[in-house]
Amino acid sequence: MVQRIDLNCDMGESFGAYTIGSDEKLLESVTSANIACGAHAGDPTVMDRTIRLAKEHNVSIGAHPGFPDIAGFGRRMIDFSPDEIYRMIVHQIGSLQAFCKVHGVQMQHVKPHGAMYNLAARNRDAADAVARAVYDINAELVLFGLAGSELLTAGRELGLTVASEVFADRTYQADGSLTPRGRVDAMINDVDFAVQQVERMLNEGVVRTVNGGSVDIEADTICIHGDGKHAVSFVEKLRAMLERAGIVVSSMGD
Amino acid sequence: MVQRIDLNCDMGESFGAYTIGSDEKLLESVTSANIACGAHAGDPTVMDRTIRLAKEHNVSIGAHPGFPDIAGFGRRMIDFSPDEIYRMIVHQIGSLQAFCKVHGVQMQHVKPHGAMYNLAARNRDAADAVARAVYDINAELVLFGLAGSELLTAGRELGLTVASEVFADRTYQADGSLTPRGRVDAMINDVDFAVQQVERMLNEGVVRTVNGGSVDIEADTICIHGDGKHAVSFVEKLRAMLERAGIVVSSMGD
Amino acid sequence: MVQRIDLNCDMGESFGAYTIGSDEKLLESVTSANIACGAHAGDPTVMDRTIRLAKEHNVSIGAHPGFPDIAGFGRRMIDFSPDEIYRMIVHQIGSLQAFCKVHGVQMQHVKPHGAMYNLAARNRDAADAVARAVYDINAELVLFGLAGSELLTAGRELGLTVASEVFADRTYQADGSLTPRGRVDAMINDVDFAVQQVERMLNEGVVRTVNGGSVDIEADTICIHGDGKHAVSFVEKLRAMLERAGIVVSSMGD
Amino acid sequence: MVQRIDLNCDMGESFGAYTIGSDEKLLESVTSANIACGAHAGDPTVMDRTIRLAKEHNVSIGAHPGFPDIAGFGRRMIDFSPDEIYRMIVHQIGSLQAFCKVHGVQMQHVKPHGAMYNLAARNRDAADAVARAVYDINAELVLFGLAGSELLTAGRELGLTVASEVFADRTYQADGSLTPRGRVDAMINDVDFAVQQVERMLNEGVVRTVNGGSVDIEADTICIHGDGKHAVSFVEKLRAMLERAGIVVSSMGD
Repeated sequence: MVQRIDLNCDMGESFGAYTIGSDEKLLESVTSANIACGAHAGDPTVMDRTIRLAKEHNVSIGAHPGFPDIAGFGRRMIDFSPDEIYRMIVHQIGSLQAFCKVHGVQMQHVKPHGAMYNLAARNRDAADAVARAVYDINAELVLFGLAGSELLTAGRELGLTVASEVFADRTYQADGSLTPRGRVDAMINDVDFAVQQVERMLNEGVVRTVNGGSVDIEADTICIHGDGKHAVSFVEKLRAMLERAGIVVSSMGD
Repeated sequence: MVQRIDLNCDMGESFGAYTIGSDEKLLESVTSANIACGAHAGDPTVMDRTIRLAKEHNVSIGAHPGFPDIAGFGRRMIDFSPDEIYRMIVHQIGSLQAFCKVHGVQMQHVKPHGAMYNLAARNRDAADAVARAVYDINAELVLFGLAGSELLTAGRELGLTVASEVFADRTYQADGSLTPRGRVDAMINDVDFAVQQVERMLNEGVVRTVNGGSVDIEADTICIHGDGKHAVSFVEKLRAMLERAGIVVSSMGD
Repeated sequence: MVQRIDLNCDMGESFGAYTIGSDEKLLESVTSANIACGAHAGDPTVMDRTIRLAKEHNVSIGAHPGFPDIAGFGRRMIDFSPDEIYRMIVHQIGSLQAFCKVHGVQMQHVKPHGAMYNLAARNRDAADAVARAVYDINAELVLFGLAGSELLTAGRELGLTVASEVFADRTYQADGSLTPRGRVDAMINDVDFAVQQVERMLNEGVVRTVNGGSVDIEADTICIHGDGKHAVSFVEKLRAMLERAGIVVSSMGD
Repeated sequence: MVQRIDLNCDMGESFGAYTIGSDEKLLESVTSANIACGAHAGDPTVMDRTIRLAKEHNVSIGAHPGFPDIAGFGRRMIDFSPDEIYRMIVHQIGSLQAFCKVHGVQMQHVKPHGAMYNLAARNRDAADAVARAVYDINAELVLFGLAGSELLTAGRELGLTVASEVFADRTYQADGSLTPRGRVDAMINDVDFAVQQVERMLNEGVVRTVNGGSVDIEADTICIHGDGKHAVSFVEKLRAMLERAGIVVSSMGD
């Protein structure tokens, strides 16, 4: 059986005179681009340019909605109600959808950002709000969420196609959660080891945990971090090694 | 021959805890609502509520894009390029379009706001940017612009249906322009006189000017100001008298 | 022994074209104005005008810093660190201080707003950050906080003069906390009863609680709500009745 | 006679997760830091850190107020009235002043940013507004402005100490204005030539113009651009060569 994996990366997170990320370089290696919608990052000029670049590189386009908080880059928890979350996502997907229209491309997926992603992973009401907004705008969109999260459950119950997101360069705890970033053993810097982790996820449906055991995990798409110093070389190596291992790297829609 | 006129009003310009306008009251009398898109005014919660109200009142819905400037309510001239104007309109129409989708209503028209409206009235490059954005998103949308403006010319050349906007409660200069607000004779406070002005526009295709002459004018839609103290009673009287005069008051799409 | 009480009210919370509150009217009855600093509400024009008005009415001026969140009016909890809170308060007091300078008036006090006020009432780290910022800018400023709050404790430990804030029109729970607004017995609408509550606070140092008991409370200043429909008439009556009861109504500095 | 020149650079223009400039490196070579105040760039955390760094490097601190427009980095012309400009400067200087207070440093100067700088260079009403705001807050502050500008005239008439700003790496037109950036001969990339230009300004009070002539110019401070790729090495060389030429490099207050 041929194994398949998607590589997704957050993009379009520059803002006015402020530049962040290496979008153009990363588009050569990833298969799905999560494009900021002007709320936690991005602006109409950045959205327009990023969609054009993704189209040129034949990378699938997704909306990357976040809390409306440029000053905090959407990473700060803000006390929004589920209804407010529903509406901000409708607003943001709609604005990106319009750029897809003028560029003649289809939107493939939606992946929430930062504090919204984390909240929707653990809180069912927030998860339902996110999934419902996606469903109401376009029931064909694929919903990206953390493997094992409330968000995936909420999406599945609505009948959405979901993509279970895993991390190649992060370690996992016994309960399947990610080792918090502050911990010394949180990151996997060795690309070989990262590829092995992905292979095992695809072949055995499990991930080795930091305490030496293993836990079930579903892997549809790998989150690529675009902001590290070595982001570009890491993803290039990761993709090459995945392909050498016989894993097809392609977007969810292919 | 039956005469027809649309009554349009800017709406959804509240923001967070800040309330402006008498939207719910005015929706009983107008036929087209221009709904702010969160750039010069409005936010996702206000957009959602305003579309729901417009739908309940069977009032046609339009996008009301403006310069991204809540602090200045979109009234300040800001030095944007035509490309930037194109993109901000795509962004804003898209976000309102998404709320139309989740409420199951069609967007009918687009009317730019404030400084953007004034710029597109006199500057052809800006007018082209506005018209092109509307056309690229949905060529069926009706473009509202000042009677005799560059914006209407730009829209017509692209093949858009346009609506020529006139004022019932403002006086006109010999060249067809509006008497500037600062002047003592700028406003028409007498509803009878306002109705006569509209009747003459529809029956004779002209408007009386302040210097005693008259000038050609096309009248498809009347701009109703929603923020005056007597806004609600003025539009109620205006509509009643127009109907008594045998003029059909209905939106552009009817 | 003559009893004394201050009446404080949040002011200068308009923003651009958006107007909120009845500042000019309320300045005739209150003795301390808490002026928004452009973060949760207000802007340089509003700050300038509000300070001028407060000076004309001989009302003491205070800074009213809040979370930087115009869209949420500073009422939403946002996950800021104590260091971030310290810096936002330094920034905001500084900006208001500059308007005091150009108008030739002294700033008397600081009262945090909304979510920041609530957080500093119950969380000691946040309370320390607020108190420290006030102290570092000007150790002569009076710090306003909820009666019995962590904020007052933090201020006292630094050596700041503090003002214990009470409510004339809210009921109290057995533990001295305010009855949550959602509850039917939360508000006191009868001015006579509100005055009695203040008299007892001043004369006996206690407040009657909803369960029929009483609890100790210190009352230096009464919070006047400026945004209700009857805000102006309530404070006028309240002040008149307090004075009739022999209570001196004056600001903290007098 | 010993010649003296100040080297000033815009700093503290990062914002939240967005980083811009090489502040820490540049502070080793410049003598005056113009620190953004959170309106066109910067935020309370960035302001705090930048003042601390400037203090550590013994670099003179100035406020760098700009139009409130993070999305446009204060470079876009916005139609503000002189009164609005006055108030935004009061607000911004005040906020930076508070950080100076808590760090125990003195503010030395004020230099407007971007569109505000350009407007105040050519428009006397705007120039008066800027100068008056500086004067009203603290008449001891030094006002930085373009050599030959309306801003310097306005400042001198109020009795402010002014600093005439020149460019080492830009060419000049016959009328003393800067060659517009779009032109091929606008920039001076050769550090030797840049130093010669500064030497002539100081020794002869003139600058060579692109048409081969020369024009009078007063040079108190040189604007160092912090955002170019070679910004750090350019200023290091420039400073070393100026000192080798016997020119004292020191801030205005020394």
